[in-house]
Amino acid sequence: MSIRAVDELVKEFKKMPGIGLKTAQRLSFYILRISEQEADKLARAIMQVKEKVRYCSICGNITESDPCQICTDSRRDSQTICVVEEPKDILVIEKTGEYRGTYHVLMGAISPLDGIGPENLKIDSLIERVKSKGVKEVILATNPNAEGEATATYLSRLLKPLGIKVYRIARGLPVGSELEYADEVTVTKALEGKLEM
Amino acid sequence: MSIRAVDELVKEFKKMPGIGLKTAQRLSFYILRISEQEADKLARAIMQVKEKVRYCSICGNITESDPCQICTDSRRDSQTICVVEEPKDILVIEKTGEYRGTYHVLMGAISPLDGIGPENLKIDSLIERVKSKGVKEVILATNPNAEGEATATYLSRLLKPLGIKVYRIARGLPVGSELEYADEVTVTKALEGKLEM
Repeated sequence: MSIRAVDELVKEFKKMPGIGLKTAQRLSFYILRISEQEADKLARAIMQVKEKVRYCSICGNITESDPCQICTDSRRDSQTICVVEEPKDILVIEKTGEYRGTYHVLMGAISPLDGIGPENLKIDSLIERVKSKGVKEVILATNPNAEGEATATYLSRLLKPLGIKVYRIARGLPVGSELEYADEVTVTKALEGKLEM
Repeated sequence: MSIRAVDELVKEFKKMPGIGLKTAQRLSFYILRISEQEADKLARAIMQVKEKVRYCSICGNITESDPCQICTDSRRDSQTICVVEEPKDILVIEKTGEYRGTYHVLMGAISPLDGIGPENLKIDSLIERVKSKGVKEVILATNPNAEGEATATYLSRLLKPLGIKVYRIARGLPVGSELEYADEVTVTKALEGKLEM
């Protein structure tokens, strides 16, 4: 038994990250079970995101209005830029409520193995912003993995000659974790970044 | 930062079974990343399933044409009915390629705790089929858990007085598990080892 419409939906769900065949089938049977109204809401929500959501022309964040809420917020410190790899990283930092500067999204990280070089990232526009907007401080919040570290090192070499402060987010032990289970590189970084009490 | 269209999509994804907040956000960012054409394919596939897929008026299986492919297939043995809880269970049995009879979907199992009694299941139509269509054999393939066993016992008491053979799939399936997650070989063994009730 094979129903084309169901097979088609399973195929589409399977394209999503972290969704295998079994999960795609489970989700398809969920769609079969719900009302047409509910299915319509989901389909509409998908299309609305594509229709309404744009990238901010200043920072590259996702937004419904350009420039984005953060770039147009006069209470935010536009002289400080936090550089992240993806728009979703902004969500994580915003959730802390601790950061009052602006952002810049690179849209990835340098990864020679995946054929991604500096020319594929939004680096020119970052340098342009720093030069023309009186930016005083850049915090590099790329991921603490090989690609993110390489990207941070690369950016720091470009930014420091511009006479601004360049920071890297601290790498150390996650709060609530145990020393016993931490890897050596993390512990090394935690020791290097020790703070006086 | 909160973007209404994205929040809306996260909310819709979160309604799906086994999808939590983090996964819903990951899926939403996937939608943001793909092209409008690809998003449209997904949204369409969802609506197509709702528009095209119906339940077979004979067996209750999902189908694009009524009666379904299995019920209209003359090579299938219509004197043998395999009773399952959900349409997705048919997929699992069909994948073994070992079964040549027809099906009957109950649309659930007896579960007093969830307020589901025999009157909420497609039992009348099963009895009607058995009585009027010269059915000689019924294989009860409800799940090997408490609800499925109770349902099988209930059905067996109704069916045996009709003078037909009533079988229960073998407990080659791990007790407490669900048919949906069983592998093909196990399901094949379960069919081969069916026991008269």
